[in-house]
Amino acid sequence: MSKKVVTLGEIMLRLSTPGYERFVQAESFDAIYGGGEANVAVSLANYGFDAYYVTKLPKHEIGQAAVNALRRYGVNTNYIVRGGERVGIYYSETGASARPSKVIYDRSNSAIAEARADEFDFDEIFKGAAWFHTSGITPAISKAGAEITKRAMQAAKKAGAKISIDLNYRAKLWSPEEAQAVMKDLMQYVDVCIGNEEDASLCLGFTPKGLDVTSGKLDVEGYHEIFKQMKEEFGFDMIASSLRESYSASDNGWSALIYDGKDFHKAPKYDLRIVDRVGGGDSFAAGLITGLLDGKSPADALDFGVAASALKHTIKGDFNHMSRDEVENLVGGDASGRVQR
Amino acid sequence: MSKKVVTLGEIMLRLSTPGYERFVQAESFDAIYGGGEANVAVSLANYGFDAYYVTKLPKHEIGQAAVNALRRYGVNTNYIVRGGERVGIYYSETGASARPSKVIYDRSNSAIAEARADEFDFDEIFKGAAWFHTSGITPAISKAGAEITKRAMQAAKKAGAKISIDLNYRAKLWSPEEAQAVMKDLMQYVDVCIGNEEDASLCLGFTPKGLDVTSGKLDVEGYHEIFKQMKEEFGFDMIASSLRESYSASDNGWSALIYDGKDFHKAPKYDLRIVDRVGGGDSFAAGLITGLLDGKSPADALDFGVAASALKHTIKGDFNHMSRDEVENLVGGDASGRVQR
Amino acid sequence: MSKKVVTLGEIMLRLSTPGYERFVQAESFDAIYGGGEANVAVSLANYGFDAYYVTKLPKHEIGQAAVNALRRYGVNTNYIVRGGERVGIYYSETGASARPSKVIYDRSNSAIAEARADEFDFDEIFKGAAWFHTSGITPAISKAGAEITKRAMQAAKKAGAKISIDLNYRAKLWSPEEAQAVMKDLMQYVDVCIGNEEDASLCLGFTPKGLDVTSGKLDVEGYHEIFKQMKEEFGFDMIASSLRESYSASDNGWSALIYDGKDFHKAPKYDLRIVDRVGGGDSFAAGLITGLLDGKSPADALDFGVAASALKHTIKGDFNHMSRDEVENLVGGDASGRVQR
Amino acid sequence: MSKKVVTLGEIMLRLSTPGYERFVQAESFDAIYGGGEANVAVSLANYGFDAYYVTKLPKHEIGQAAVNALRRYGVNTNYIVRGGERVGIYYSETGASARPSKVIYDRSNSAIAEARADEFDFDEIFKGAAWFHTSGITPAISKAGAEITKRAMQAAKKAGAKISIDLNYRAKLWSPEEAQAVMKDLMQYVDVCIGNEEDASLCLGFTPKGLDVTSGKLDVEGYHEIFKQMKEEFGFDMIASSLRESYSASDNGWSALIYDGKDFHKAPKYDLRIVDRVGGGDSFAAGLITGLLDGKSPADALDFGVAASALKHTIKGDFNHMSRDEVENLVGGDASGRVQR
Amino acid sequence: MSKKVVTLGEIMLRLSTPGYERFVQAESFDAIYGGGEANVAVSLANYGFDAYYVTKLPKHEIGQAAVNALRRYGVNTNYIVRGGERVGIYYSETGASARPSKVIYDRSNSAIAEARADEFDFDEIFKGAAWFHTSGITPAISKAGAEITKRAMQAAKKAGAKISIDLNYRAKLWSPEEAQAVMKDLMQYVDVCIGNEEDASLCLGFTPKGLDVTSGKLDVEGYHEIFKQMKEEFGFDMIASSLRESYSASDNGWSALIYDGKDFHKAPKYDLRIVDRVGGGDSFAAGLITGLLDGKSPADALDFGVAASALKHTIKGDFNHMSRDEVENLVGGDASGRVQR
Amino acid sequence: MSKKVVTLGEIMLRLSTPGYERFVQAESFDAIYGGGEANVAVSLANYGFDAYYVTKLPKHEIGQAAVNALRRYGVNTNYIVRGGERVGIYYSETGASARPSKVIYDRSNSAIAEARADEFDFDEIFKGAAWFHTSGITPAISKAGAEITKRAMQAAKKAGAKISIDLNYRAKLWSPEEAQAVMKDLMQYVDVCIGNEEDASLCLGFTPKGLDVTSGKLDVEGYHEIFKQMKEEFGFDMIASSLRESYSASDNGWSALIYDGKDFHKAPKYDLRIVDRVGGGDSFAAGLITGLLDGKSPADALDFGVAASALKHTIKGDFNHMSRDEVENLVGGDASGRVQR
Repeated sequence: MSKKVVTLGEIMLRLSTPGYERFVQAESFDAIYGGGEANVAVSLANYGFDAYYVTKLPKHEIGQAAVNALRRYGVNTNYIVRGGERVGIYYSETGASARPSKVIYDRSNSAIAEARADEFDFDEIFKGAAWFHTSGITPAISKAGAEITKRAMQAAKKAGAKISIDLNYRAKLWSPEEAQAVMKDLMQYVDVCIGNEEDASLCLGFTPKGLDVTSGKLDVEGYHEIFKQMKEEFGFDMIASSLRESYSASDNGWSALIYDGKDFHKAPKYDLRIVDRVGGGDSFAAGLITGLLDGKSPADALDFGVAASALKHTIKGDFNHMSRDEVENLVGGDASGRVQR
Repeated sequence: MSKKVVTLGEIMLRLSTPGYERFVQAESFDAIYGGGEANVAVSLANYGFDAYYVTKLPKHEIGQAAVNALRRYGVNTNYIVRGGERVGIYYSETGASARPSKVIYDRSNSAIAEARADEFDFDEIFKGAAWFHTSGITPAISKAGAEITKRAMQAAKKAGAKISIDLNYRAKLWSPEEAQAVMKDLMQYVDVCIGNEEDASLCLGFTPKGLDVTSGKLDVEGYHEIFKQMKEEFGFDMIASSLRESYSASDNGWSALIYDGKDFHKAPKYDLRIVDRVGGGDSFAAGLITGLLDGKSPADALDFGVAASALKHTIKGDFNHMSRDEVENLVGGDASGRVQR
Repeated sequence: MSKKVVTLGEIMLRLSTPGYERFVQAESFDAIYGGGEANVAVSLANYGFDAYYVTKLPKHEIGQAAVNALRRYGVNTNYIVRGGERVGIYYSETGASARPSKVIYDRSNSAIAEARADEFDFDEIFKGAAWFHTSGITPAISKAGAEITKRAMQAAKKAGAKISIDLNYRAKLWSPEEAQAVMKDLMQYVDVCIGNEEDASLCLGFTPKGLDVTSGKLDVEGYHEIFKQMKEEFGFDMIASSLRESYSASDNGWSALIYDGKDFHKAPKYDLRIVDRVGGGDSFAAGLITGLLDGKSPADALDFGVAASALKHTIKGDFNHMSRDEVENLVGGDASGRVQR
Repeated sequence: MSKKVVTLGEIMLRLSTPGYERFVQAESFDAIYGGGEANVAVSLANYGFDAYYVTKLPKHEIGQAAVNALRRYGVNTNYIVRGGERVGIYYSETGASARPSKVIYDRSNSAIAEARADEFDFDEIFKGAAWFHTSGITPAISKAGAEITKRAMQAAKKAGAKISIDLNYRAKLWSPEEAQAVMKDLMQYVDVCIGNEEDASLCLGFTPKGLDVTSGKLDVEGYHEIFKQMKEEFGFDMIASSLRESYSASDNGWSALIYDGKDFHKAPKYDLRIVDRVGGGDSFAAGLITGLLDGKSPADALDFGVAASALKHTIKGDFNHMSRDEVENLVGGDASGRVQR
Repeated sequence: MSKKVVTLGEIMLRLSTPGYERFVQAESFDAIYGGGEANVAVSLANYGFDAYYVTKLPKHEIGQAAVNALRRYGVNTNYIVRGGERVGIYYSETGASARPSKVIYDRSNSAIAEARADEFDFDEIFKGAAWFHTSGITPAISKAGAEITKRAMQAAKKAGAKISIDLNYRAKLWSPEEAQAVMKDLMQYVDVCIGNEEDASLCLGFTPKGLDVTSGKLDVEGYHEIFKQMKEEFGFDMIASSLRESYSASDNGWSALIYDGKDFHKAPKYDLRIVDRVGGGDSFAAGLITGLLDGKSPADALDFGVAASALKHTIKGDFNHMSRDEVENLVGGDASGRVQR
Repeated sequence: MSKKVVTLGEIMLRLSTPGYERFVQAESFDAIYGGGEANVAVSLANYGFDAYYVTKLPKHEIGQAAVNALRRYGVNTNYIVRGGERVGIYYSETGASARPSKVIYDRSNSAIAEARADEFDFDEIFKGAAWFHTSGITPAISKAGAEITKRAMQAAKKAGAKISIDLNYRAKLWSPEEAQAVMKDLMQYVDVCIGNEEDASLCLGFTPKGLDVTSGKLDVEGYHEIFKQMKEEFGFDMIASSLRESYSASDNGWSALIYDGKDFHKAPKYDLRIVDRVGGGDSFAAGLITGLLDGKSPADALDFGVAASALKHTIKGDFNHMSRDEVENLVGGDASGRVQR
């Protein structure tokens, strides 16, 4: 039987201009439903897990369409609470070459941001769960979001699930002070922390000792040292971070790092031609979690996560529609892109 | 030189499913900018007036796209204040046959709903204006909206402009009590009132004397009597109302009534095959105002308004892209739809 | 808790030309997944039942897309067997006015047509089921289809579920002789039979006594007599049939009849402007079953079914995306199509 | 072996707004190649004739695309001369209800309008031809057009082909005086004349004697008398005319009349829901010619033509994509629009 | 007069997801007709040859649409036999970066796979033909396909046409044993063989002597040796092969080799940004054949073929819409992509 | 208050095939309005200037749509004269890799080409203007165009505006002799000349002394020398030119040079992934003018222009929809394309 995994967060309506159109050119928007943890849930369902998404969505048809997007790709939506007024929105346009992609948020007062923790039966939700994943966005959206996240972590821990978080600091949602007031407390429940030293500094007030990070460019050894210090300070089992080199909006380099207290590993680097980079980090988290749930070594789990997210960059929308076999094929070294007949 | 006309209200982003798709089917939305008074402004610009739209819109690109939609069709946007967080949204799907069209609003906390009256220089705005039009929606969106509407009416009156209002009661925005607390006071400034007895009852607390309106179906004489009483009670110059017979979502009958204290006139009825009925009432108001500004008799102005709005029902989007000549052609009796080469 | 309902049959890929395009004009096809019983399943899920669809689909991505289409709209796909080579296809173009819609089938050798009955665990499938529905198409697609249908009916009966069938004779799939050899035997399990006298004649070899049906046009009393005789001959609890008057490909009249051994009822007639008539009969069956499962009288259940299917004709695709409330609203008499805000 | 039929004229690029969009709304145009006689050629190829189209088109890719549109639907393009600068254009938008369809021409200086008669080897072109068809538009586009038309008629006559013309007066192209100076002379070659009394008056200076046509509405007997007089004056074998009743841009009545010196026949009338009425008259001409080439009586040929063109009104684009069987099916009385499976 | 060239094979309906969409995301498919030898035919028609395509297609409209796709681009379809049930289908999605393009075949039981050799009048077909081309796919689709291919080759040889084949081993269609049983026998008729050592090994059981090909990477000298041995073993006039370096699904290197018994030539290599690589090999074959028919040296013919196919990779669909001049321009060295005005 | 800038020229309808489609594949065209100087006007409006466009356009809806395209993006269209018959057209397809983009012009006899100079009130137009920009295309379209350009320059000079011209030699419009007869005379009014030595040679008959330009590749020092000589010969204040390296239709290098009599500056080079390169040069001119109007040094103005146009290459259509801040961000060195949230 498949392992039960639970993710928690917001799912938004992404209004995305077609092709490379700028906002002021658009006569239509592609309607894409997605959001950090929802993207993780879809990947986990793709890989064969019994994936649940926990959120709150309005009863109206736009809320229903968000539910349907998750159901379509195999995510169990039975724990989604229905109510509230609006589905959070973000507008996106896709950049190219030297022009960056751009996102405009319109997510205040969404149903999940205005939900109450007691609307969720977390004991029921985490019954039998093997893993719980969320991100630093969920506690950031509102006080309620922070409370819901904490309660979920407590229930997950009680149920014996492993807990991962993607720190994902968002300056539009809160200040470093606000973030740290919430996030530092949550770290006691976290087993696997995903984030780089910048996220750790902003969300956790973490400052690496004996390292100069002001230069902006860290070498791999620098990351090793930072991860060691983070592990020590927060007690994580593992720390992982993706590594993006933005040559341009069209071309990126993509790799990741992991440290488990013993080994420090850097995944192979992929040079990406980007179709849609939204959800890249989420597909990495989902791949890493999959590897760990499968019992792979941290290094192998990381390699799976990086290959999965390299492939995500070629797929329109937030969700990563790659199968386990397709990811393994890339992990195995076939990046030739030859036609599969 | 063209007469200056000013309209005030909200302009929203309408996210409209393609064709007859239901919300849960939609993979994209047509991005249409519109809103009651903005629709009136575009019609007035089309008819050759120097039409200004007054609202507040965010500085970001979605706000800019709303500005651009108005500019594209010749509306002067110089008085639009820029700021605030969001553009109000409504989702719409187009019905057919026995299935009604459906609208879901997501307009709370829009820039204009959170604007302050002192952000608008109404003396400057109404300098030289011949007409001011707004609707019962603008004062309904927020306290600020009500205050802005009142200040605008006062400035318009001071500047010598005629004032029209489309009562347009919206149950999603306020209760009859709330509406009446605001709207009754505004009526002192209104010259031309557009609305039926239901709007008058809900917005103005108006109850016709000696008439039984509970049966639901009023004959034309009933309307005559009601308009007389409304004129007496509120001191309007004229009262007009469109008359829609909804045979189905695909087919409607369409006419209108006007009373100016002397004459009561019913316009010819058009049987409509509907492409998009959103903005039908606005195109009627714009046509009526145009006729009156042109110096037509109220009856002739009404006929122009009804023909204009009959044509609007064949046009996708909120705006009515018909020229003065095209409307006059229909007023003149040519409803044959023969190809114009 | 929701009642469990099971439907069985094929789900095909419908390749539908855009708008009113003819096949030879099409540069693309809309990809719509649907099929008689699958359409019923989606309606039942919409109305809140725990709806299961039983079929066989290939493991490849086209098979997966068919599964996803069902999941998206809330159908439980856990009993779908995966394997085989192809998803059945039908090409469709939408007619208008005097030009009929046209369908070209390419469904031979589909996974379900080549499935074996022992691939389905029918005891498990019907555990706790309240209703089972299938149609005359499933036994027609292949010998295996006939065997699977019989086994399913036996298991459903054993589990105490009510059984309905939509006779749906398809001349492209079998001859009357072949049909009767299979269908007459199945009737012993059927509680609710949906079909007119033509289907009954072709599928069941039924000939009404004392009635001249050669004239083509039966009056309502004629149907009453036929239903009586059918009930007597086959032992159904109820017999129902939709009544379509094809004025043209754009406009139809739509009603239905039911007889339960006591009462004979004709539903109100709707005049339809057609957007997409595919799935019209299926949405009728689903509405009727819903009414009966809800404990409505046969007459009320029929009225619900007819209103549901009248609305289906306005929706693109095979599935009927109407909620229970929306159907009840039409049953209640509001066919005005006024905008729902 | 199929009979050889030759048509001559212009083929233009029709830039058509999507759906019911007005020109000022359009962000794209459907690219449709068509034109009166080209539309006839495609119909004739559909019905199985060896149909040739004669015109001149530029060598560049837009000219090639016009050639390809004809080849795609089976028209032989071997006699098309390549050269000149531009493909004639017309912009079109599709009306609905009381809003007429609208056409803007941009056809001056097209390759065929600037062609020389000696560029065409008419003896070769008409070798073995059974029929030649053109319209009053071809001689109207330029002096060269008039000269080319005359030479073609002379060669066709010499080769023993029957000659038909659709009078089709176009006020944008020439005045009645200019038209008559050219057209009266051409009538000596014409066997089958298609046109109503208005075309005859404008193109041929024809005035019916003893009839008041100023009232605008002719009864059928009036047409009979007019056709008699036209036959007498110009010596045609047959005269035919379609009859359109424009209830609106969405709904038309459609029939036709024919007179062959003995019998006068009115075809059954069809009530049309219009998808695209451009090319309606051309599909009528093609159907009539087909019937006559098939050896049908004029009345039967007319009925075939009217059914063919009734069906054309349901098809997007200029061309009529109906097969012989499909037209015969409608002639046979099946206008029910029932799905063809 | 143009030379007559004949190609034989299947033409399929390619259902292609839009843009880079994965199958499970697609709500529509682009409908593209194509197939190895049909693609060659279109190229040859583009280059001015009198190109015939020989296949069998159903009489229904999907079959007709396949015929029309060929006619549109100038291929003569007079030898296509009409009948059978279905048009073979393949689903395709376009990869990017590390994600490969993917193809799902649904081609069994197509009309050509079930055709009989005696349905084709090969003596008539090859009358006056200068060249015959087919591929290893046609004999692979069915026994009938193999028989038809052999008969065609015999008739072509008798008529004095040169014969080329693209070996094109397809593992989905047959095993190496099955392939060799058919293909080795056919080689006696072949003048120009297109294929690499892998195809030769699988289709022809060919094993190069004195060369280690297990390392996977052959140098150019290795190919030279292999071609020598192939020529010796099978008696070909010439052997050619394209050389693809798959850096990723987005970027490939592209060149080719040829050996004619005397000279061995490697074409310049192009670095390709890929729009659609389907049909790349076919456009190479067509370019090579064109060069040889034009009387170019094998080396020059190869360079023309490589340039032609380099350009094909930038064109959506199976067909290569490049003119002779455009290809020559690239052969001449202008790969700058500067705008042609 | 914003500075008034005036641009003069043609605005055409660009009929652009979707994606990378070739002309012969296109079933629709994107309708884009643009043209050299109009593109400059839109950029200048984007950067906050009071930008006016001067041209002549027909009164019909296609002319209106061109006006609306300018208004939408903030260009003042009050000086546009309405009249004439047609809007000039150009067809465009977008190349990729080794396949060049292609343009087919159909612009003869457009409204502006047939306008008369006295239709424009140039004294009014240039009242208060700070800058006037046009290109070598406007005088090339017709004698009237040349006359209009000269009169505009004279009026601009009289009004004290700076004058810039983009030489832009177009071989399809005139010969070098014709060009020089007109252009040399215009140079007396020009302050800022944009063009390379090839344009200068063709338009101005300029031949650099002591330099061999036949080799095709000039080094930067060569340009310095040429610009010196051009300044001397024609008396310009400044000379600037963009530098494009066409690696392929997909990838270009992009930079520019400027000389002001004292300093010679080469801007940083950008490597571009191209979405749409049409309007690249115009966006450069607009950026340069903006920098100069802002009071930047020539070198800084050039850098702004190059960054602006680098970004343009990523935007579909002729217009450059980049804000001042977005351009400055790239000038400041951030070419990473990181998502802007």
